[in-house]
This record gives sequence, structure tokens and C-alpha cells, in this order.
Amino acid sequence: MRAAAQSMDDEPVLLEALDDGVLRLTLNRPAARNALSVGLMTALSRALERAADDKECRVVVIAAAGPAFCAGHDLRELRADPGRDSYQRVFDQCSALMLQITRLPKPVIAEVHGIATAAGCQLVATCDLAVAAEDARFATPGVNIGLFCSTPMVALTRAVGRKAAMEMLLTGDLVDAATAKALGLVNRVVPGAELCAAATALAGQIAGKSAFTLAIGKEAFYAQAELGLAEAYHYAAEVMTRNMLARDAAEGIDAFLAKRAPVWQDS
Amino acid sequence: MRAAAQSMDDEPVLLEALDDGVLRLTLNRPAARNALSVGLMTALSRALERAADDKECRVVVIAAAGPAFCAGHDLRELRADPGRDSYQRVFDQCSALMLQITRLPKPVIAEVHGIATAAGCQLVATCDLAVAAEDARFATPGVNIGLFCSTPMVALTRAVGRKAAMEMLLTGDLVDAATAKALGLVNRVVPGAELCAAATALAGQIAGKSAFTLAIGKEAFYAQAELGLAEAYHYAAEVMTRNMLARDAAEGIDAFLAKRAPVWQDS
Amino acid sequence: MRAAAQSMDDEPVLLEALDDGVLRLTLNRPAARNALSVGLMTALSRALERAADDKECRVVVIAAAGPAFCAGHDLRELRADPGRDSYQRVFDQCSALMLQITRLPKPVIAEVHGIATAAGCQLVATCDLAVAAEDARFATPGVNIGLFCSTPMVALTRAVGRKAAMEMLLTGDLVDAATAKALGLVNRVVPGAELCAAATALAGQIAGKSAFTLAIGKEAFYAQAELGLAEAYHYAAEVMTRNMLARDAAEGIDAFLAKRAPVWQDS
Repeated sequence: MRAAAQSMDDEPVLLEALDDGVLRLTLNRPAARNALSVGLMTALSRALERAADDKECRVVVIAAAGPAFCAGHDLRELRADPGRDSYQRVFDQCSALMLQITRLPKPVIAEVHGIATAAGCQLVATCDLAVAAEDARFATPGVNIGLFCSTPMVALTRAVGRKAAMEMLLTGDLVDAATAKALGLVNRVVPGAELCAAATALAGQIAGKSAFTLAIGKEAFYAQAELGLAEAYHYAAEVMTRNMLARDAAEGIDAFLAKRAPVWQDS
Repeated sequence: MRAAAQSMDDEPVLLEALDDGVLRLTLNRPAARNALSVGLMTALSRALERAADDKECRVVVIAAAGPAFCAGHDLRELRADPGRDSYQRVFDQCSALMLQITRLPKPVIAEVHGIATAAGCQLVATCDLAVAAEDARFATPGVNIGLFCSTPMVALTRAVGRKAAMEMLLTGDLVDAATAKALGLVNRVVPGAELCAAATALAGQIAGKSAFTLAIGKEAFYAQAELGLAEAYHYAAEVMTRNMLARDAAEGIDAFLAKRAPVWQDS
Repeated sequence: MRAAAQSMDDEPVLLEALDDGVLRLTLNRPAARNALSVGLMTALSRALERAADDKECRVVVIAAAGPAFCAGHDLRELRADPGRDSYQRVFDQCSALMLQITRLPKPVIAEVHGIATAAGCQLVATCDLAVAAEDARFATPGVNIGLFCSTPMVALTRAVGRKAAMEMLLTGDLVDAATAKALGLVNRVVPGAELCAAATALAGQIAGKSAFTLAIGKEAFYAQAELGLAEAYHYAAEVMTRNMLARDAAEGIDAFLAKRAPVWQDS
């Protein structure tokens, strides 16, 4: 895997800009199973900030180096600085990182192999889409160490049904990739050897759309989800109108009616 | 199919009152794959208004003539009158139509064959129940023409899980009937030759219940869904009490206890 | 089954404290298919109150004696005292009972065999987890007797998707255990002969966690589910911090890092 080849690098997050507008971010603390240390969270957050501003970047993939996708918070680091303020700072930073993914005006796809546990499972649940290797496994095992996965559950309960989420949270048990797909935690499961290609292809397909349209759509998706039905329709109809007035919609519709390929201006 | 036989008629929506209280509405712009022109939306809205007031109508089925269920908005019509006001008017009308289905005091069942895309997929998601032919396919492909399916997503995200909805919205890909059932977008999938019979039978089964009870229940369903748990229980307990005081509940329970068939007065 | 053996007892709810911190409550009106009479609801509520205060009790299982899990409200009792006040009192009591389960600071597992209908289905939907026998069947059939399952739908719609919930509510049809699992209404389905063992094992597994952690996690689960995303993260990060400051989290993490078993103080 490409990610593995890069893992000797010292950076906690590796960036790779692919040809077609896909930015691939690789969590790169393989020896720590990519535990979300303050350093890794800061690096990922900065990479996402740059992705937001980078016109060349249309879709983000979050992958991982080493045997695991992400094992959650860095417990050793967390316990090395005990106290309300330092704990609060770490959980606030992690929550801000997750919100940043949701608010990023570009789709984010998790590419998951190995284990994705606790805040690692939260990261998968938070990404707009997720592609998993057949060997991927997911858990919110905080309950086993006395620390309930309360922030991971925010993302988990918005991705899967309540009883399934509760079972994962109360037992801490691992669920396999097929189960994760059935529950709605991941979109697709592929053989491990095809993981990178599958995630990249999905990202590439989406990168071929108008970046303006993707941005307006992703923002509307999460905004309307928090509204009542009538309010959501009022909001969404206004978004559609705004979208229709943009150049890319005129171009896309006219190209469709003329049976030709659209040329996006991303505006 | 009955609907096909009627499709030579000029009306954009055909009405057929079946014997047992089922009103069958057929979208009837087959050459345009039943695209939701202003004319079709207006006709459907009027038909639903009449259905609301018609004591003979207990359940509504929305079917479609021709090869497709519904291909979404009429893009040619939309682009023929460009401008903020005309766009807003169309999306407002479509949103009002969807809310009208949700607020109709009678169950509405979508009978879906062929494609149901964009606002056509929204129509399926909006109906209280949906029966699909094995050949039915569903998509929210607006992203392909630069116009994100932002109003369709309001209904879609309330029917299926978030990651599945996001995948449909970001890729625009078609999902087949079996997948739509697994996701919760449709209730039942049947061979195409049995579609009309299956939808009619389901409608007929429900039409055999007290119309009063169906109305109180459907209203409560959508109302409580927007409330917090404690508030929802407070509301629902009041609805149950009101329901118990109605003649049909007394009749239904007494008939049940006496092991005889109830006779509804729909009040 | 143990429950059956105890069913000659006159108490409407049987209590059995198992060795490992599991409290087994058995609905015990087998001849009435455990219909939720005022007496049974009162007894269950009192048992749950005691469970909340009982330090020995870490997890609650709700099982049932006789051929059915629970057939819903006691219709004969309900009709014997007709009137707004008495009806409201019964539905308020039932709603309060369901909220009590959700608010209980200990996980509650439904152990379901036979039928679970109307408020009996609501009870399953309300429990944090549910294990079902292969023969278990679920329905919200109030519509058949003129009394829409409006309070059951509050729990049902929070456990399963909208179209599936609507189909159960509008048709009143029974769904089998495998379907209930696919819909998310139950977590696990096992052969009838293994039901009690399976529910007890699941309860025992969870009872081995810190009671403090379980309490903080369960409360947070239902609280964050009612919040918008940003607000939920703000709340959950504060809960995580509070959790980290507790003795059991320090013990659990330190034990994990030292590769030894944790010793919970439940604080």
C-alpha cells in the first residue's frame, strides 16, 4: 500500500495530492496504531484547513499507515497530564476536529483497514462516506476501561440505529466490516488488496462533479438534518433556488438537455 | 397495467376510485417520464385536496403511467423561465406538495416501477409507504447536472441512514429495488407483473381500518417524530386518550373482547 | 424456563437477583399474556425504583412468564372504567414507566419470547437492548381495534426506520424475529431454548463493567440524541472530561496500559 510505503516519514499526517482533485491524507503514527495524540489531531486539523482553501482539492480521503486505521485517543498521553483542564482541552480539540470534517465544504471519505476503535470509530462515523477492507473491525470499547465512549457516540448514533449503537457502547465488542455495512457505519466493503483503489475510485468519481455543487449540497445535508420537516423544506427550497442561479447548474442542465458533457466552473 | 391503458388521456393525473375506499392516482406524462412540471404538480395537489375531503377515499395510491415512475423536476420547463422568482416558485410548490402528502389525513402509498429519480425519488421517500417492482431504481442524480438534490434530501434523509443517503446524493448513482428495501426507502419489492396488485392489496388492507383512527395516527406519527422523548410521550399519551374517547376505539375494543368484527363509523 | 417455574407466584412482577449483579424481572400475568394492567405497571415501576437504588444491581433483564412476552395494555381493565381521566391516567402511567426505563442509570435488556404487541412492543423498543427467541413476533396492532398505537410509536420510531415503523402501525401485522433484528428492534435472535442463557450472558458481560461508567454513558446516550451536532459535542466533551476525572477511568486506563485487570469502585 502506498500509505505503508510513506510511513517512515516523521510527519503525523501525510498529504498526497492525486491527479484528479483527490487529496489523500494518511494518519501516520503506525506504531501507536494512529492514536489521536494532540500532535496528530493538530496535524489533521491543519491538513483539513489547507484542503478547505485549496482549489485543487475537491474530495478528501482519510487513510492510515500501519496495521490499524485508528485506535482512538492516546491514553498514555492523556494520563500523563491528568486534570480537568488538560482533559477538557483534548476532548474539545477532538470534537472540534470532527465538526471540522462535517463542516468542510468538500466530501471526506474514510478508507478503513484494521481496527477503528473509540475516537477512531468516531472518525469513520463522522466522515461523509466510508469504504472498509474486509478485515476492518469497529468498536467503542471505552466502557472496558471505565471511560464510556461519550463523544464517539455523538457520531455513532447519527450513523447507525439506536439499539446497535447501544450494544457497541455497552459491550465494547468489535463488529466486523460486513456488520458495519449492514448497520450503516460504512458504505462499501472490499477485499483488503482493493481498498485503496476502491476508495480512490469513489473519491475520483465524486471529484468529477462541480465543487460548488458539492459544497452547497454537503452544507445543506447537515443543516436540514437538524430541522423539523416544514422548516427543512423551507430551507432546502431556498438552497435549491440559490443553486439553480449558479453557473454550474445552468451549465449542467443545459449540457444534460443537449446531451453533451458539462464543463464546471465550480461557481 | 391499468395505468398504461389510461395513459392516452390528456389529464396530467388520472383518478380511479376503487371499490374498497382506495383512490388510485396515476402520474400521466409518460412521454416526459412523469417529470414534475408545474401542471403535473398542480394536478396532483388538487387530486390530494379532493382526496382529503372525500369520505369515500380512505387510502391513496400514487402510481405512474409509462416506463418510469417519475424523473424529477421538468428541467426544460425550469430552464425556459430562468430567474430567482420562477425557480423559487417551483421549489416552493414542490415542497408544499410533499408536505401535503405528509399532512394528508389518509395513508399514501407509492407504487413504483422503472426509475424514480431526484424529486421522483423524493416522492417515494415522502409517501407513508412504498411498494416497488423488482425493476425499480432510485437515484438523486442532481449532482451530475450541477444541481444538488437538496429538497429531495429532506425526504431521503428521513427515510434512510445518513451514509447511504450521502452516497446517493454525492455519487448520483442508481440503487436497485432490493437495495432500496434494505435501506428503508421502500417497504416491499415484488415482480413487476404483481406490482399493481400488491400495492392495491396493501392499500385495501389499510382501507379496512377506521378512517378516524388512521387520521389520528398518521398525524401523531409525524408530529411526535420532531419532539424530544419526554415531550413526545406527553403528546402521544394525550392523543391516545383522545383516540380512546372516540366511538371507533370503543367499538373496536368491545368487538375484539367479544370476538366479533368491528363496525367503523370513522369517528 | 425459570420464569415459567415461578409463574405460580401471585406477584405481578417476580424479582431474581443473580450472582453477578444482574437483576431479573419477570412479568408474571401469564394467563393475561402479561397485559400491562395498572397493577403490573405499578409493580414494574416499583421494581425499577428499587433497582435504581440497589448497589448490587448493575444490569436489569425484563423477561416474561407464560406463552407471551407482553400483549400491551389490559383492554378489559381499560374499558371497565371509561372516561377521559381514567384513560389519561393509564397512558400517563405507561409513558412514565417507559421514561423510567430510559432514565434508569443501569442498562435494561428485554428478553423476548412469544408475542410482544402494542405497549408490549413498545417495552421492547424502549429497553436499551433486546434479545429475542426465534419464535418472538412483534406488532403494533392497535389500528385493528380502532386505537392507533400512538404511545408505542414514540419508542418504535426511535428504534427502527420510518417506513418500517409506518407499515407496522398502519397494517398491524406481526413481524418475525429475524425481521425485527434486520429493522433494529432487537439486537440478537437465538433459539428459544437458549433465550434465557443468551440474555443472562449479555447482561453478565455488561455487569462486569464499572457501574459508574455505565450510568454516565447511558444518561449521555439519550441526552445527546436530542441535541444538534455542535451542541451534542459540547455536551459530550464535558461528559468525557467528568468521566476521566472519576476513579474508575483512572483505574481502567492505568490497568489497560499495565495490561492488568481493572478493579472497579463504581465511582
